[in-house]
Amino acid sequence: MVGAGQLARMTQQAAIALGQSIRVLAESEEDGAALVTPNAEFGDYRSLPDLRRFAASCDVVTFDHEHVPAEHIRALAEAGVTVLPGADALRYAQDKAAMRVRLTELGVPGPRWLDLSDAASADDTRRALVEFGREVGWPLVVKAITGGYDGRGVWVLDSIQDADPMLAAGTSLLAEELADIDFEVAAVVARSPFGQGASWPVVETVQVGGICTEVIAPAPRLPALLADQAESLALRLAAELDVVGILAVELFVTRSGRLLVNELAMRPHNSGHWTIEGSRTSQFEQHLRAVLDYPLGVTTQTAPVVVMANVLGGPDDTKPALDERVHHLMAKWPDVKIHLYGKGFRPGRKVGHVTALGHDLDTVRARARAAAEYLANGDRAEVDAHE
Amino acid sequence: MVGAGQLARMTQQAAIALGQSIRVLAESEEDGAALVTPNAEFGDYRSLPDLRRFAASCDVVTFDHEHVPAEHIRALAEAGVTVLPGADALRYAQDKAAMRVRLTELGVPGPRWLDLSDAASADDTRRALVEFGREVGWPLVVKAITGGYDGRGVWVLDSIQDADPMLAAGTSLLAEELADIDFEVAAVVARSPFGQGASWPVVETVQVGGICTEVIAPAPRLPALLADQAESLALRLAAELDVVGILAVELFVTRSGRLLVNELAMRPHNSGHWTIEGSRTSQFEQHLRAVLDYPLGVTTQTAPVVVMANVLGGPDDTKPALDERVHHLMAKWPDVKIHLYGKGFRPGRKVGHVTALGHDLDTVRARARAAAEYLANGDRAEVDAHE
Repeated sequence: MVGAGQLARMTQQAAIALGQSIRVLAESEEDGAALVTPNAEFGDYRSLPDLRRFAASCDVVTFDHEHVPAEHIRALAEAGVTVLPGADALRYAQDKAAMRVRLTELGVPGPRWLDLSDAASADDTRRALVEFGREVGWPLVVKAITGGYDGRGVWVLDSIQDADPMLAAGTSLLAEELADIDFEVAAVVARSPFGQGASWPVVETVQVGGICTEVIAPAPRLPALLADQAESLALRLAAELDVVGILAVELFVTRSGRLLVNELAMRPHNSGHWTIEGSRTSQFEQHLRAVLDYPLGVTTQTAPVVVMANVLGGPDDTKPALDERVHHLMAKWPDVKIHLYGKGFRPGRKVGHVTALGHDLDTVRARARAAAEYLANGDRAEVDAHE
Repeated sequence: MVGAGQLARMTQQAAIALGQSIRVLAESEEDGAALVTPNAEFGDYRSLPDLRRFAASCDVVTFDHEHVPAEHIRALAEAGVTVLPGADALRYAQDKAAMRVRLTELGVPGPRWLDLSDAASADDTRRALVEFGREVGWPLVVKAITGGYDGRGVWVLDSIQDADPMLAAGTSLLAEELADIDFEVAAVVARSPFGQGASWPVVETVQVGGICTEVIAPAPRLPALLADQAESLALRLAAELDVVGILAVELFVTRSGRLLVNELAMRPHNSGHWTIEGSRTSQFEQHLRAVLDYPLGVTTQTAPVVVMANVLGGPDDTKPALDERVHHLMAKWPDVKIHLYGKGFRPGRKVGHVTALGHDLDTVRARARAAAEYLANGDRAEVDAHE
């Protein structure tokens, strides 16, 4: 697995059960997955020689993130390395403009969009954006076409003046209409090289400041008809784009009850962490089954309501110390499942997650939120879970 | 963790979630846990210098087996190493005579027994065994006092002549009455240094030739009153013996409806593998919580019926190859959970296990057995699971 963050770390848990030996291409010994896998390779995922050296020891190469340059993935494949998902599929998770073009061709609903990257000058870009703003209205959304994640590289602009820093930086940009969002959901599916597809229940993803804080399975506010549409759409996209492994389709549900595709990810995804305990087959096991060309596992939910809450690092001086917070959390909520990624705590950084399972949405959700909040912020947290 | 077999391998999965870095003292690079943990230390668990070197890098030392000499564990503890469970507790899992003495003192029911190790000569031992046979009747059971596992070091003797090989070998022996066994169960519990106890539902363990082949949770034939007694007994023993971590109490249920203690184990145990998917907290997570002095997790069962079946290696030339068997198994039973230990297949060796979950005992059990049988024996297997 190229990349050694929490996704690779959790994939290692699934690999152990399947009798597989996973290796990671890590940046540092402190990477979450480098801490828990033997013989981590250290190198730069942007360097073709490093990738080649790493791939030489692997039967299959897959990814913990989408930042490996497409030309390197193609070079590996041409040299006979099995790389999954392949460069042609991964492109639609790497390049937001290419994704919008393709989805529009496929007739998949999304916000109105404009590729600003081919304007001849910053002035031309500005003029095109002004024109687009006239058409879709302000505020609107501007995104870096490549390299963004967790809300980085995405800006909501109130007026053309707000675009100046991005225009000055020379970033390749895509403009999108700001959808009339009621709430957000994600449809996570897997696809094997053989073409087998498997889908988990569609989840609601709660976002704060562009970062996902909670995932609720199944999406409680989503009408059954839209849930079916979202699952079908994700399975169709996985096939059309020839994805192998996990495909996460992030969707807006508009106030008028439409589904609009927001983003695609082709790897285990934050919106699927709940499947570790919440589904008979976790997204990490499913990703491995897919890239290793095994049949996929069943995706039955193990409890009627499953809520995952991210632990976002608080300030350095959070009291009590992390270990003591874990202790208190386990004592107070012995049923909450804890996942720590082995990372240092930094404000806003995803350092772990918790999962709660049960029957009553309000109870389960309150418990997951309170546990995550306490783990992140300790005595600063406002802990208020129904018992 | 001293020892790097499948128990350490599965403990690594739990350690990853808890943000812990587990190290193993392995015998070889091919050991199941050495394949999936970084920086494995290689050495001999019978060597105090090797143990000291290993312990120097650990906050807490615990065990994947019970074969570390008690005097070495005491020496580590005296040098300030936190070793859990401690030597005084572990003694009762290492020394079957000491276990019988202590359990008899505690008034815990077991088969009648006789320590043959203090006889002055082989002739004296023989005479004592003849006398014991007159008292409890033949056949009877003779066990090596130390070092046995998976049916090794346990013999059922029809007459005194059958004892000759063991007497000639000079092994320290314990004799036990052959109980009138209806079926076997195991009560698995955990205890923290703080004294907190947690217990899983009592399971039925199906034994073939002294090796456990299946574990059924909860034990379907065990009357509720006896199940309560078995749980209480295991929790009481964990406290009386000052166990920290997992204690597995293997019990006979006699035809007259009595519970008799057969064996004790103080580590994650084969009769608890079902808890990985079958309980909200697995025995591996619970063992870590206990030895790290965290509060214990809830032990709620995640499905009404959970069946674990061991995969016992078949002959070398089993067809089709393992990888293809895994493929077929996943296609036929996408709901069965597979656990492979990364070991070479040898006839009779525990190389993995499968777990099935559901509502109907017959269906779930048939599925687990068929999957395990097919994984072990391929085309030779008689696969006959109800769909």
